[in-house]
Amino acid sequence: MPKTVVLVYSGGLDTSVCIPMMRENYGFERIVTVTVDVGQPDEDVKSAEDRARALGCEHYTADAKQEFITDYCWPAVKANGDYQGYPLSTAIARPLIGLKAVEAAKQVGADAFCHGCTGKGNDQFRIEYVMRALLPDTPIIAPMREHSYTRTEEIQYAQEKNIPISVTADKIWSIDENLWGRSIEGGHLEEPNYAPPEEIYQWTRGIDAANPTPQALTIGFEHGVPVSLDGERLEPLALVQKLMTIAGDNGVGRVDIMEDRLLGLKVRENYECPASTVLIKAHAALEALVATAAERKFKAMVDQQWGELAYYGLWFDPLKEDLEAFINRIQRRVTGTVTLRLFKGSCVVTGRASDWALYNEDLASFDSKTFDQSLSVGNVQTHGMQSRMYWQLKEKQDKG
Amino acid sequence: MPKTVVLVYSGGLDTSVCIPMMRENYGFERIVTVTVDVGQPDEDVKSAEDRARALGCEHYTADAKQEFITDYCWPAVKANGDYQGYPLSTAIARPLIGLKAVEAAKQVGADAFCHGCTGKGNDQFRIEYVMRALLPDTPIIAPMREHSYTRTEEIQYAQEKNIPISVTADKIWSIDENLWGRSIEGGHLEEPNYAPPEEIYQWTRGIDAANPTPQALTIGFEHGVPVSLDGERLEPLALVQKLMTIAGDNGVGRVDIMEDRLLGLKVRENYECPASTVLIKAHAALEALVATAAERKFKAMVDQQWGELAYYGLWFDPLKEDLEAFINRIQRRVTGTVTLRLFKGSCVVTGRASDWALYNEDLASFDSKTFDQSLSVGNVQTHGMQSRMYWQLKEKQDKG
Amino acid sequence: MPKTVVLVYSGGLDTSVCIPMMRENYGFERIVTVTVDVGQPDEDVKSAEDRARALGCEHYTADAKQEFITDYCWPAVKANGDYQGYPLSTAIARPLIGLKAVEAAKQVGADAFCHGCTGKGNDQFRIEYVMRALLPDTPIIAPMREHSYTRTEEIQYAQEKNIPISVTADKIWSIDENLWGRSIEGGHLEEPNYAPPEEIYQWTRGIDAANPTPQALTIGFEHGVPVSLDGERLEPLALVQKLMTIAGDNGVGRVDIMEDRLLGLKVRENYECPASTVLIKAHAALEALVATAAERKFKAMVDQQWGELAYYGLWFDPLKEDLEAFINRIQRRVTGTVTLRLFKGSCVVTGRASDWALYNEDLASFDSKTFDQSLSVGNVQTHGMQSRMYWQLKEKQDKG
Amino acid sequence: MPKTVVLVYSGGLDTSVCIPMMRENYGFERIVTVTVDVGQPDEDVKSAEDRARALGCEHYTADAKQEFITDYCWPAVKANGDYQGYPLSTAIARPLIGLKAVEAAKQVGADAFCHGCTGKGNDQFRIEYVMRALLPDTPIIAPMREHSYTRTEEIQYAQEKNIPISVTADKIWSIDENLWGRSIEGGHLEEPNYAPPEEIYQWTRGIDAANPTPQALTIGFEHGVPVSLDGERLEPLALVQKLMTIAGDNGVGRVDIMEDRLLGLKVRENYECPASTVLIKAHAALEALVATAAERKFKAMVDQQWGELAYYGLWFDPLKEDLEAFINRIQRRVTGTVTLRLFKGSCVVTGRASDWALYNEDLASFDSKTFDQSLSVGNVQTHGMQSRMYWQLKEKQDKG
Repeated sequence: MPKTVVLVYSGGLDTSVCIPMMRENYGFERIVTVTVDVGQPDEDVKSAEDRARALGCEHYTADAKQEFITDYCWPAVKANGDYQGYPLSTAIARPLIGLKAVEAAKQVGADAFCHGCTGKGNDQFRIEYVMRALLPDTPIIAPMREHSYTRTEEIQYAQEKNIPISVTADKIWSIDENLWGRSIEGGHLEEPNYAPPEEIYQWTRGIDAANPTPQALTIGFEHGVPVSLDGERLEPLALVQKLMTIAGDNGVGRVDIMEDRLLGLKVRENYECPASTVLIKAHAALEALVATAAERKFKAMVDQQWGELAYYGLWFDPLKEDLEAFINRIQRRVTGTVTLRLFKGSCVVTGRASDWALYNEDLASFDSKTFDQSLSVGNVQTHGMQSRMYWQLKEKQDKG
Repeated sequence: MPKTVVLVYSGGLDTSVCIPMMRENYGFERIVTVTVDVGQPDEDVKSAEDRARALGCEHYTADAKQEFITDYCWPAVKANGDYQGYPLSTAIARPLIGLKAVEAAKQVGADAFCHGCTGKGNDQFRIEYVMRALLPDTPIIAPMREHSYTRTEEIQYAQEKNIPISVTADKIWSIDENLWGRSIEGGHLEEPNYAPPEEIYQWTRGIDAANPTPQALTIGFEHGVPVSLDGERLEPLALVQKLMTIAGDNGVGRVDIMEDRLLGLKVRENYECPASTVLIKAHAALEALVATAAERKFKAMVDQQWGELAYYGLWFDPLKEDLEAFINRIQRRVTGTVTLRLFKGSCVVTGRASDWALYNEDLASFDSKTFDQSLSVGNVQTHGMQSRMYWQLKEKQDKG
Repeated sequence: MPKTVVLVYSGGLDTSVCIPMMRENYGFERIVTVTVDVGQPDEDVKSAEDRARALGCEHYTADAKQEFITDYCWPAVKANGDYQGYPLSTAIARPLIGLKAVEAAKQVGADAFCHGCTGKGNDQFRIEYVMRALLPDTPIIAPMREHSYTRTEEIQYAQEKNIPISVTADKIWSIDENLWGRSIEGGHLEEPNYAPPEEIYQWTRGIDAANPTPQALTIGFEHGVPVSLDGERLEPLALVQKLMTIAGDNGVGRVDIMEDRLLGLKVRENYECPASTVLIKAHAALEALVATAAERKFKAMVDQQWGELAYYGLWFDPLKEDLEAFINRIQRRVTGTVTLRLFKGSCVVTGRASDWALYNEDLASFDSKTFDQSLSVGNVQTHGMQSRMYWQLKEKQDKG
Repeated sequence: MPKTVVLVYSGGLDTSVCIPMMRENYGFERIVTVTVDVGQPDEDVKSAEDRARALGCEHYTADAKQEFITDYCWPAVKANGDYQGYPLSTAIARPLIGLKAVEAAKQVGADAFCHGCTGKGNDQFRIEYVMRALLPDTPIIAPMREHSYTRTEEIQYAQEKNIPISVTADKIWSIDENLWGRSIEGGHLEEPNYAPPEEIYQWTRGIDAANPTPQALTIGFEHGVPVSLDGERLEPLALVQKLMTIAGDNGVGRVDIMEDRLLGLKVRENYECPASTVLIKAHAALEALVATAAERKFKAMVDQQWGELAYYGLWFDPLKEDLEAFINRIQRRVTGTVTLRLFKGSCVVTGRASDWALYNEDLASFDSKTFDQSLSVGNVQTHGMQSRMYWQLKEKQDKG
């Protein structure tokens, strides 16, 4: 049996450098590369495949786009998936990549995993958690973390090993892309007070260049899941892709926030999340129509906790299962339509409708005679009762 | 001693109708009208004064604009004041109006309060709470709630009593305005699926009509309080007024939400909140820079609770004092600047700076050698430890 | 068709007085009394029946003991059901009583409901909520609330109407009993600083009189539900009744707390809750063994919210359904045994066991070599990273 | 300048072994031992001193008992300091020990810190956090963590180095003691289903051996701080020591829980916390009397968060400062007395009194005519309004 390692492979510099290292420094004879297609550019998927084969690896490409949307993005929609303003795009793809690596490892009988994450970021936590949860006895090797290379050192090593890398030492942006969003890091982008240059954006137009006329859009939901655009029923993948274009053309989906990473580093982060931004906004608006005030308040805490677990990469955590039981129960009623207006970077909800709307036209009307207003005297008189007692005691104390 | 009532007076139909009622139906000889200027149009304040005097009342106008900003709006900024997406503009003015009525009642030795709130809305709760907290023994009369008039009935009554009201039965919008925002109700606006017509907006331009070029804006904060615009130190009132114009001209500040009222009615609400929208966004961005991840998470709950109390009108609640002690403690570090770009309805933070920033350039850098990446192996290996144990038990159970 | 009212009937003074009132003051020809047996003394159930018939009513007794335990008490166990220290005994029986009244009303085609709750307490909220939720068009009459009788007035009226009431004006205690607990009100008991006299207790012995030797007890749970005592599988009713005796004999289950009622009144309340106290303590201990730290923390909030809804009588609230989806998900693992020692008023957990225990003997051991201790250097070095940055900034500011 | 290390010294095996190691393996010439007296047995403090000197160290004993109570235990009382049922006794002493080590390090100009914590427990996090926060540039050496000795290896090494240790390889219990409590670990105690033997307890009598008669006790509080016992004003140290005896004699203060440690290990823990148990119970009861229902609910979350930070040893965390600002604001009203009955392991509150009590005798009374009961019709009719709408929609959906 050849000593086998499964390498999570993107085709980029970090993971390509791992290939000769696995062979020469760690003694693996068989290197199985796994590239997971979660909606990054097709050419990236293709070039990863070519490069892996060129470097003598056994290569698997897993087309996980459909699975990513239905099993990762849809739960994120239901949870209004957010961490500190970030729609979690990279975060929720990592466990799926980990899962595909685990599946491959089981198939090929791997002796170890390898990934290219560094020791400062979040992804090492997200990917290794899945590997350890599902294959606890398979060791994990993280050469980038062990050796803390600088980019220059890495490129040098790649050149020595004849790795055909298109990266140069002065490439600025580090990009991660999937159907749920695009993250851009590098250069001065991490600095809180640096205004990001227009060139970092590829999926969303600037407000100046955005469509000159507003675009109305009606999204249909069933049990919290998006099912149609402007009345046309669409498959999940088609729906997300169409929305990416519409939102991007209208300049919708840029995110610029201060983010607290898992290890405690606070950095500024930039994302383009056109589809996720629109879908979550629409979903939240529909939920606000059908959920009680008490449900809205409590679900905000549930969503916050869900977002934190997702950000931490604890995708298979039992608490996440518990939270989703709560979330799915509410989603039974999150069926209906939301109309939005996308225009010049804005995405505004202009209408919501549902058979489960907790809206009563008669009660809401100014001239309603259904509601006997004099009854609210009791409500008003008991409002803040303890709070008012406090003021009476206070006065007494102040006098005494 | 003439039997005296203090009437919270806006000059509008509801409160004007109260004047003859107080005299004829409730037997008050002296009617003291109190109009509180919290930034509504000057002509409204003036016409209230004229009308009150014409109707034989003793009138007080309290210019509370300055007090409103420093004692009501600034605390709202520190708490990122929000309830379900609503910046609480009307909500936080009501307790101040109640307070001014209480002050007047003490001065004139009032036997009762009167207000024009109906029995369905939130304002009866907000105003009466303050009156009862601070003058618990003074009865409160709410004729609109007791009698549940329709608008048509009210107008008829006003005409009988020669009240010079400019309102007609077909006036559609019910407006409330102060420095923190403008609320528009009436017509079909309460319906969730009705797109609000452009005509309801007066303070914010539509995206089409908004300024054609982006406007950068730097807001300076000291201890959570806005103190300057583009480096120019401004008095609170001037700062808010200037910002209202800038934001409004750029189409920033429209709010369209589903709101759960105090009694449990869910209605759609429309607001224009240009200054509050910008200031709270900027404040939140600065807070995200200086607060720890744990502080951000916990303060979100504190802010949520603060917003709920403010919405409920429990302005003098002991819990609000407790929450503000928490909030003010964090604000010690919320000093610095935030740069925003306002353009075509968008208001985007592009930079934040503070001496208290929890941002460490070296740690954040990709090539940092300060942080020994290999140390995070421990963090990664213990990440989700119990979660992973759960999976091992699950597998055992599944097998067993 | 005779005009029919369904009266929620306990056989006590308040509800007995309602019978002639319904006939004489409200014009009902047919009075249907419903007594729900949730474990109050059999003689109370019997005497209610006799009295109702003697007063010319059509009487139904619903034996709901089994339903009460499985559908009301067991969910309370799973949620560690508590409100401010109170195991919710009366609170969770009210919705069931309301439900049985609704069922009767549907059967007999009632024109109205009647109940004997006063206007100050919680029970009016709990019972009417169920009636309105399930039969929104049937009016509800609450004579005790409408007329605010004093006890003396009530007794006088009862005597005039020849109602055979055993109550005298100097009866002190107002008691409510069911399988989940016993509440005692009246006299000076509502006063916070009054030590309750021994005579109010009937189900629990004082520490002096409690069993002289400790009693060990092992409770078996399956999916959060108690199924056995000391290894003997028992039906729900038998289990609860047996436990009531054991706990009571050992002086376990007295509750003495400050309780904030629905309308805002703060009162001191006294309860005896032997079975519920032991079962919830045992359940919580088992949950602590199988739930992750994060689940324990979050479920505490879920439980708190559940307890509040239960106290408010919102038994059929959609949020309660959502919370129970969360709770039931965790309960899948709450299977195992808990051993307690009951002795002289104490109830102490001394052991817990479960196949789902997140306890790893090797990891916990002092001499474990499995866990590479040196790895935790990373964890320790990043612990409180932002917190430490704050101290560095503080020092800088202090110096600067 | 001799190379100097400050060693946190308890006099026990682990820290004694560090002394020769510091000298021989790490090259320190001057070893400064610091023993912090937080209420452990006097002979332990004394023997640490003797042993340190005998081993050639420069020794400091810091009597921090007073400081421990007022600056660590009192804040814990105000926060009803708890983590999963544990009164945090060891946890809150660690930062003070760290602080004293920092003070010593500054005085002696230390080049490094040394402590004896292992790599599995919580204390390494607590002590190092303080050192790093306050002296970020001073390295920390943790020999026990680096080398993962077994107890047998340690004893052997100690014997080789002529360290006069009274420990033998078969000593079972690992004890930590301070004024706030006593923790016992070792043997089978970590196992969830092992009933702890009576011999582990030293500060609390078993129920059998406890005082044969109940003891009433009245504790006076001012602004959340205990100031008197049975009306006698006492200094903090005297008050805590007296209470330790009283509670212990009555068998009060044993704690037996499942605890989730910082790294994720779930273990069973046993404590004796007589004084803390009584004081926190009393404090909570007084708070329940003076705080509004909303304050009680929110403070429970604040307290939970405080307890977590304290358990994590993040004593100087900015969030802790924020939380304490909230807590201290409420404490302004936590002035009054609480009466308890201690008897046979039970500690029951029987009375509470305060000038700030939100208890109104008239409102609470059954026969009150102040409260117009008919007013609550409005409250009852709007109770659960949205919840009831949900049921109407549900019925419609079920039919449709």
